[in-house]
Amino acid sequence: MDNNHFWLNRRTIRNYSDVPITDELLNSLIEKASHAPTTGNMQLYSVIVTRDPATKKRLAPAHFNQPCLLEAPVVLTFCADFNRFNKWCETSDATPGYGNFLGFITALLDVTIFTQQFVTAAEMAGLGCCYLGTTTYNAPQIAEILGTPDYVIPVNTITLGFPKGDSEVSDRLPLEAIVHLEHYNDHSERQIKEYYSEKESLPAMKKFVEENGKDSLAQVFTDVRYTKKDFEFFSRVYKDFINRSGFNF
Amino acid sequence: MDNNHFWLNRRTIRNYSDVPITDELLNSLIEKASHAPTTGNMQLYSVIVTRDPATKKRLAPAHFNQPCLLEAPVVLTFCADFNRFNKWCETSDATPGYGNFLGFITALLDVTIFTQQFVTAAEMAGLGCCYLGTTTYNAPQIAEILGTPDYVIPVNTITLGFPKGDSEVSDRLPLEAIVHLEHYNDHSERQIKEYYSEKESLPAMKKFVEENGKDSLAQVFTDVRYTKKDFEFFSRVYKDFINRSGFNF
Repeated sequence: MDNNHFWLNRRTIRNYSDVPITDELLNSLIEKASHAPTTGNMQLYSVIVTRDPATKKRLAPAHFNQPCLLEAPVVLTFCADFNRFNKWCETSDATPGYGNFLGFITALLDVTIFTQQFVTAAEMAGLGCCYLGTTTYNAPQIAEILGTPDYVIPVNTITLGFPKGDSEVSDRLPLEAIVHLEHYNDHSERQIKEYYSEKESLPAMKKFVEENGKDSLAQVFTDVRYTKKDFEFFSRVYKDFINRSGFNF
Repeated sequence: MDNNHFWLNRRTIRNYSDVPITDELLNSLIEKASHAPTTGNMQLYSVIVTRDPATKKRLAPAHFNQPCLLEAPVVLTFCADFNRFNKWCETSDATPGYGNFLGFITALLDVTIFTQQFVTAAEMAGLGCCYLGTTTYNAPQIAEILGTPDYVIPVNTITLGFPKGDSEVSDRLPLEAIVHLEHYNDHSERQIKEYYSEKESLPAMKKFVEENGKDSLAQVFTDVRYTKKDFEFFSRVYKDFINRSGFNF
């Protein structure tokens, strides 16, 4: 299977048609994803399916009211999950020792590998997805709405539906910016400028800088989209929630 | 593209043939993976390619001398990477604020989505992969060998090659163990026993319990494979390394 066109043209889909997603289709995609690699075959994840419009409405503020959340026929909240595994241990006279940083990280990797395998299977079946990065900002509210117990941490939210209208393939950095041969070759200032020059010269990015009244595209990231103040605030919120939920570090 | 057979039969490959992986093939796979979703299109990752047998030999102890590391023609270390983005900010009069928990988590999700997209593209092209979970155990040694700077954290290692011989598809839990409708439906003891009964009855698992002199399969996990003592030790090692590397939490 070559599928070059699929890989190089994949894109995030934020607008969805009215075509419904059957339980059969959804379950077949989750089953495909469940064959993704997982640490020691522990499958340290779970997925919560939201179809009820009332629940989507309750989730919306936690996701900063991104429109795709209400429009998508299905919203999926993927969680790092040591709850099920711990319960299995308890029914088997085994004492689990995963309430720590590595326990959390192991489950976080497991669920993210599973999520991305789901996304690829869905996209190959003609559906479109959007990751909502707000999950790591407002996990406590999301967890309360979805009723997750200890050792279950919301990590990735995906909105899912059949695509409506067109959407664009995003630009990417040249390969030499991300690939290092044999050892990490740290970047000179000249190289950094080269890597980002194409992105900075895109009309959409220039418009972005102008609209935000900034001097550079990087300032749009640091001063508007992903500020230090927000990152420090949500760092505390997410870490406190994870610690309260059983993973102590 | 349906590809049911691919998804349901994917497997980890630990034995590799002598067929070489050309730079052209490797780069085409990395390029495909680079179209995976990424937070705000920041691409907070990098990948270090190891082909040199001498470097593999140096990496081997950090990966507990797993044989696939030396046998694979290519070893890839995928890193959460805010170094490149921070340098771009610095060349653009922008002040990055990502040296915190959310900064680390955001890059960790980015690199893991990228890694899994690479693995799927490789598997669809007929190659085989194995994740080495030892990366989160011994990241400090791996980082030293590969020369990673601050804000670059090894997260996932993949051994890559064309498959040699047969390998088995791993068992997976039934879907009802991982899927929750509308809200998290916590598991009763009876349900837990049901979910794990098929796994526990597999001859290979029964042998595993017997060989380790344990009373249950779960005890093989908690007492032999993934012990509390090891998880607590490597929790400290990994967190200290991440904190020393620029992400403070």
